[in-house]
Amino acid sequence: MPDKTDYDLIILGAGPAGMTAGVYAARKQMDVLIISEDVGGQAMWSAGIENYLGFIFISGPELVRKFEEHVSTFSIPQQFTKTTRLTRQGETFRVDTADGRAFTARAVVVATGKSPKLLGAPGEKEFTGRGVTYCATCDAPLFSGQNVAVVGGGNSGLDAAVQLMKICLKVYVIERGPELRADAIMIEQVKAADNVEILTGTEVSKITGDAFVSAITVGGVDGGEPRQLEVQGVFVEVGLTPNTDFAKEVLRLNPLGEIPVDCAARTGVPGLYAAGDVTDVPEKQIIIAAGDGAKAALGAYSYLVRRPSVDDWGPRAK
Amino acid sequence: MPDKTDYDLIILGAGPAGMTAGVYAARKQMDVLIISEDVGGQAMWSAGIENYLGFIFISGPELVRKFEEHVSTFSIPQQFTKTTRLTRQGETFRVDTADGRAFTARAVVVATGKSPKLLGAPGEKEFTGRGVTYCATCDAPLFSGQNVAVVGGGNSGLDAAVQLMKICLKVYVIERGPELRADAIMIEQVKAADNVEILTGTEVSKITGDAFVSAITVGGVDGGEPRQLEVQGVFVEVGLTPNTDFAKEVLRLNPLGEIPVDCAARTGVPGLYAAGDVTDVPEKQIIIAAGDGAKAALGAYSYLVRRPSVDDWGPRAK
Repeated sequence: MPDKTDYDLIILGAGPAGMTAGVYAARKQMDVLIISEDVGGQAMWSAGIENYLGFIFISGPELVRKFEEHVSTFSIPQQFTKTTRLTRQGETFRVDTADGRAFTARAVVVATGKSPKLLGAPGEKEFTGRGVTYCATCDAPLFSGQNVAVVGGGNSGLDAAVQLMKICLKVYVIERGPELRADAIMIEQVKAADNVEILTGTEVSKITGDAFVSAITVGGVDGGEPRQLEVQGVFVEVGLTPNTDFAKEVLRLNPLGEIPVDCAARTGVPGLYAAGDVTDVPEKQIIIAAGDGAKAALGAYSYLVRRPSVDDWGPRAK
Repeated sequence: MPDKTDYDLIILGAGPAGMTAGVYAARKQMDVLIISEDVGGQAMWSAGIENYLGFIFISGPELVRKFEEHVSTFSIPQQFTKTTRLTRQGETFRVDTADGRAFTARAVVVATGKSPKLLGAPGEKEFTGRGVTYCATCDAPLFSGQNVAVVGGGNSGLDAAVQLMKICLKVYVIERGPELRADAIMIEQVKAADNVEILTGTEVSKITGDAFVSAITVGGVDGGEPRQLEVQGVFVEVGLTPNTDFAKEVLRLNPLGEIPVDCAARTGVPGLYAAGDVTDVPEKQIIIAAGDGAKAALGAYSYLVRRPSVDDWGPRAK
């Protein structure tokens, strides 16, 4: 059905929340489309996941592969493109995509997740892809035997540091705040390594190099003498921005740009649900995103069952 | 530490919500105790789970075994007993158990799930364990080649019917309401079977037999002639009751006996969290229980970090 553009439900995003929503929608035999630029979302970036119950240890890409396999047991159509605009006309939502197409549905689940925040330091943009990276899982192996800096002392920063300390000569962990913000179990691992130097109360003021990064300049946030660190890699892990620009016409976002939801994944706009890291749910975890993705799909299902359009709902001849 | 009775956090229940809370608490290096009568909760009763992402198909007992293995990678102490009373003295919770002991903690996660509801028909109690059962996964194999009735046309009833239709001569599905209430995909399976008879708008008025069940009497809920069905097994799947009796002194329950929670798994009582089927979250799903279990543990962690007792918090010498 290459020309089909109207669905019961459109799911935006194919990370843990979007994929779980897809499986739940398909099991309810909803006529569902998934639109996403990529598959797996941030889960792809994790080298080791130890808190998705059922898998004691699994890499992000491997867990995503299992999710994908699960989704693929249903024939859910997918469009691999970016959503540029979400609007609403009466009871119908319209999704515009970067490849110039438009799709419609009576219910939408937004599960577009978050994207990495930039550091904002001079040199960052110039050296992106030439030493500056936002994905340790993707790029860590490139820096084997070298010196690197991880900027950010939260869980994602320390996840990166744990990967890097096993293969790099030296790893600097740079945190603006007075102390690391990661799980105690991860802080212990990093502190036990003899090639990790932790610099708290410190920020990056400049990234320098020639063709590739060769050094960064760091300084105390409360002033003090700047220091130059000779590193070939800079792993930026300073937070994430929700992917919600496309939704501003139809939704009120919170000051962080996240979508406020209630406990049932409802956005306040009838028929519009959201789940996963794109929402204001405080904890950003794969299993939480998956659980809330299920809530969103089941919510959309109930919504559509309660408001059937004439001859437009239910298992149908396709 | 056989005599240790005071913890940072006590988790009541070891189903998907409780076990996920346990893993999250242990990863935060909280001093945590799990108290539960059994392991796995209702997840144990499912013959086939197809909507826990990552496992395309897994039996309930097998998924529970994976959860247990996951929990066992941490040294979380567990007490296998029933909670009889939960009370609060100042900022400390006290848990009394059926074996006459008492445990204390500054935070508690209630994840005690639900137990099956009784049918209320004459003969039900007398024949429980002698033909009347509440666990198709446990007992289906006992009825191979026989005639059975499943009472209840929701997902759990149809899950039972799908198991039974493969091994039984004849399966009656008895639903009080005007139609089956399960997922479309399950209704299809059951309707496609030639040994399943679906009786909607029908209820069980009597269960009869000698040493074991030999028949049930059913009748239309709107009256009509009663009918006798010769069955050797009666699988009761008419709903569940939350296990919250022990919590009535400290919590206000909803009319269904469930614990009202907000989106962060908070109960309104500081330090007291709840997750999974014991709560008023509308959708009862393993992945939702697991996600909310994670929220509860992370909420309890934040609560304890914000309110440390003197020399009573953090990784400690044990």
